[in-house]
Amino acid sequence: MMSDKIRVTIWNEFVHEKNKDEVRKLYPNGMHKAIADGLGSKYEIKLASLDMPEHGLTETVLNETDVLIWWGHTAHGKVEDAIVDRVHAKILDGMGLIVLHSGHFSKIFKKLMGTKCDLHWRVSEPAGEKERIWVIEPYHPICKGLPEYFELPNEEMYGERFDIPEPDKTLFISWFEGGEVFRSGLTYSRGMGKIFYFRPGHETFPSFYNKNVLQVIDNAIEWACFSGTRDTMKVSHTKVALEKINTGL
Amino acid sequence: MMSDKIRVTIWNEFVHEKNKDEVRKLYPNGMHKAIADGLGSKYEIKLASLDMPEHGLTETVLNETDVLIWWGHTAHGKVEDAIVDRVHAKILDGMGLIVLHSGHFSKIFKKLMGTKCDLHWRVSEPAGEKERIWVIEPYHPICKGLPEYFELPNEEMYGERFDIPEPDKTLFISWFEGGEVFRSGLTYSRGMGKIFYFRPGHETFPSFYNKNVLQVIDNAIEWACFSGTRDTMKVSHTKVALEKINTGL
Amino acid sequence: MMSDKIRVTIWNEFVHEKNKDEVRKLYPNGMHKAIADGLGSKYEIKLASLDMPEHGLTETVLNETDVLIWWGHTAHGKVEDAIVDRVHAKILDGMGLIVLHSGHFSKIFKKLMGTKCDLHWRVSEPAGEKERIWVIEPYHPICKGLPEYFELPNEEMYGERFDIPEPDKTLFISWFEGGEVFRSGLTYSRGMGKIFYFRPGHETFPSFYNKNVLQVIDNAIEWACFSGTRDTMKVSHTKVALEKINTGL
Amino acid sequence: MMSDKIRVTIWNEFVHEKNKDEVRKLYPNGMHKAIADGLGSKYEIKLASLDMPEHGLTETVLNETDVLIWWGHTAHGKVEDAIVDRVHAKILDGMGLIVLHSGHFSKIFKKLMGTKCDLHWRVSEPAGEKERIWVIEPYHPICKGLPEYFELPNEEMYGERFDIPEPDKTLFISWFEGGEVFRSGLTYSRGMGKIFYFRPGHETFPSFYNKNVLQVIDNAIEWACFSGTRDTMKVSHTKVALEKINTGL
Repeated sequence: MMSDKIRVTIWNEFVHEKNKDEVRKLYPNGMHKAIADGLGSKYEIKLASLDMPEHGLTETVLNETDVLIWWGHTAHGKVEDAIVDRVHAKILDGMGLIVLHSGHFSKIFKKLMGTKCDLHWRVSEPAGEKERIWVIEPYHPICKGLPEYFELPNEEMYGERFDIPEPDKTLFISWFEGGEVFRSGLTYSRGMGKIFYFRPGHETFPSFYNKNVLQVIDNAIEWACFSGTRDTMKVSHTKVALEKINTGL
Repeated sequence: MMSDKIRVTIWNEFVHEKNKDEVRKLYPNGMHKAIADGLGSKYEIKLASLDMPEHGLTETVLNETDVLIWWGHTAHGKVEDAIVDRVHAKILDGMGLIVLHSGHFSKIFKKLMGTKCDLHWRVSEPAGEKERIWVIEPYHPICKGLPEYFELPNEEMYGERFDIPEPDKTLFISWFEGGEVFRSGLTYSRGMGKIFYFRPGHETFPSFYNKNVLQVIDNAIEWACFSGTRDTMKVSHTKVALEKINTGL
Repeated sequence: MMSDKIRVTIWNEFVHEKNKDEVRKLYPNGMHKAIADGLGSKYEIKLASLDMPEHGLTETVLNETDVLIWWGHTAHGKVEDAIVDRVHAKILDGMGLIVLHSGHFSKIFKKLMGTKCDLHWRVSEPAGEKERIWVIEPYHPICKGLPEYFELPNEEMYGERFDIPEPDKTLFISWFEGGEVFRSGLTYSRGMGKIFYFRPGHETFPSFYNKNVLQVIDNAIEWACFSGTRDTMKVSHTKVALEKINTGL
Repeated sequence: MMSDKIRVTIWNEFVHEKNKDEVRKLYPNGMHKAIADGLGSKYEIKLASLDMPEHGLTETVLNETDVLIWWGHTAHGKVEDAIVDRVHAKILDGMGLIVLHSGHFSKIFKKLMGTKCDLHWRVSEPAGEKERIWVIEPYHPICKGLPEYFELPNEEMYGERFDIPEPDKTLFISWFEGGEVFRSGLTYSRGMGKIFYFRPGHETFPSFYNKNVLQVIDNAIEWACFSGTRDTMKVSHTKVALEKINTGL
């Protein structure tokens, strides 16, 4: 019997949690597990990480995934290109993608954007500073249930210019105590897939326990889940040529 | 006990159906009634027209409307400005709007767009020609259940340039037998409200009985229904000033 | 003999400079004159204000204007609707428009946007706070010659949500000392006209003497000046119908 | 002495002109040479092709190129990845790019777009059919000097859905005799670079001798040439961290 639940796979490189004490204390089973717990039983959730065979992103897993969540940072370069290509193909075919924080520099995000995806950060290990996230387009389904703004008392700063293509919608803009701003909630579509970039959270801060952060991820899963039609593209992508309809011309 | 159904009000100037035989034959109870019948029992539907008190768009009716559908043509000028202002305010507060065909020249659409909303048409009473509507963004929820393209064997031509602001998404582009093209499915947001413009159907053709046209309207109702948060804007629109958060600066 | 210079008309309600000492001291001949002086001899500049006949925006003046700059605040309601309609028509016909600061609430800007154009500000007379303006799209011609960010040590805060339609491009985002962010450089097109909204400067601060602010206005004039073709629209706007091209069908 | 002229490099795979008689007759020195001749002496033009060392796109050539034009079709796979990466880097650093016709499937365009860039075409060798290109945004500088629409009496059909990201602006939409439509003039920005996709012309048709096609390419060169500021990005791309500005917090 099939569940009607949206099927979510949360991918985490899962490295910092193993080799940094402060991160392990905060996320003993990994950030992916913390997100899964925060989302509760609403979705059918799978966890995947770099150290699993095929990084946990086998054909089977992806075929059973409606929305993929991605967190990476220190090990972007260790993600195999063949797996990135597989994920890319699946997104173009309609799988939703939610990219979190340092995932901006992941191979999959850069491949989808076509740009460097660079941004500003502070060189020193982030001591943490206040981030105030303003909701710019409150009518959007990803903003459901949010207040006018919400704060994360300690986060790593990301600053503009964020080197990305023009987003479809800029849902959030962050204000940082140190003097920077950042477009921190961005929607895109690529092929049949819907993509959401969300700026928090750095591995040394408890952002994935924050109820507003979890609310955004929850909303984004529903938004990113395919809800159009694929029939159209089956024809288009097999390149079947049309006959001229007005053959009498 | 409240219904959970989306509440739709279909507004039609309802003039051609009374003073043109060929239109009355096609839509004996008005195009609004034909659309309502085509949508079936999925929504809670009200009908409204120009000849009703306050054009059928009283405060009470609008307060009980999630999505408003608008068809007008020959009587745009007879719609009272006060009613247009009321509808405009309600849209900015989150009511969805679906504008059909010649509604492109309605006061409410022009007020929302800020442009002339002009386009090309043929001077002679349209004899009808083939319209082929191509689906440009099949992943979009308004395109759910549609084929790659669908045809209306007889429609009035509308041609570019359509003098409108850049849409959020161009979902459909029409091909006309006579040599024109038209962006025929367009999404916008204004304030808290979501807006969809859809090009068919002229009053002398049976487009509102076409299953693909009805599918688009059905999808658009679900899409246009408010699904974000209004809390944010309550604060914003009452202009309550924020205190400086870092008063120590 | 005609000059090749772009013809700029700077409109200022010119009220605060007359009835507030601190503003008169800062801008003794009005903000419009300060902007004109700052731009130098590069453009052919006319000044216009509320107290002139037809607010200084006669048919003749507008016919000789390539780009109109607009500053208003306390007297938005005193601008006559007939003049607003005239300016609106001229913009749709290709005149560029640059709206400054509190001009966000002017009749002309709201008419072009179709929304409330509301935003956050502090209730108390602004004491001034630091504004840091980040350049988000440096490749854009309006950003020519700007540093990565620039600061105005004292400005009035404007905060999101700014209730506007999705801009074509968001060129600047402001960071405010007090905890807010604002999309402070926005491009739009309406009809044949190009529109740029730029957030500074409040009448009690010397922002219109700031070299970066003047650089932005200078760049925006060049950008907003009509550079396409109007021939197309002459046909389109006179609604001349096309003949079917394939009459044999 | 340096010229003030914009420096244009026209790249053509230059294969069909050598191995197909009908193409050689039409473009005896290659389509790149025909375009160069059509543009006249306004620009400083270099020609480059697949068979040259490094495909004619050496570091030196690219460093002396403001705008690169790209035509490819049968030999996309033969363009070396290292050269594609070099061109990609140069575009992100501000070189303009104009992609023509079948260049939609080139490695460089797909890398910039992040999608498949697929579209419809007819399976049989194109016999040619009428293309009518409608100007959708006449105010745009790329549309300068164009009529309301222009026709190419014989072209290869390209049909939607064109699998690309949402463009910044859709300038042209093509109508094809056979029943298809196509977004045939599209602007993008990626990094510091401006990109224009233009749909004509197939190698077996004389589209690159058409004055309107040449006018569009001419306009697009001026538009795509870098006109913003790179200073910003120098800082951003070297990832120099900013200090917190309010260190007293």
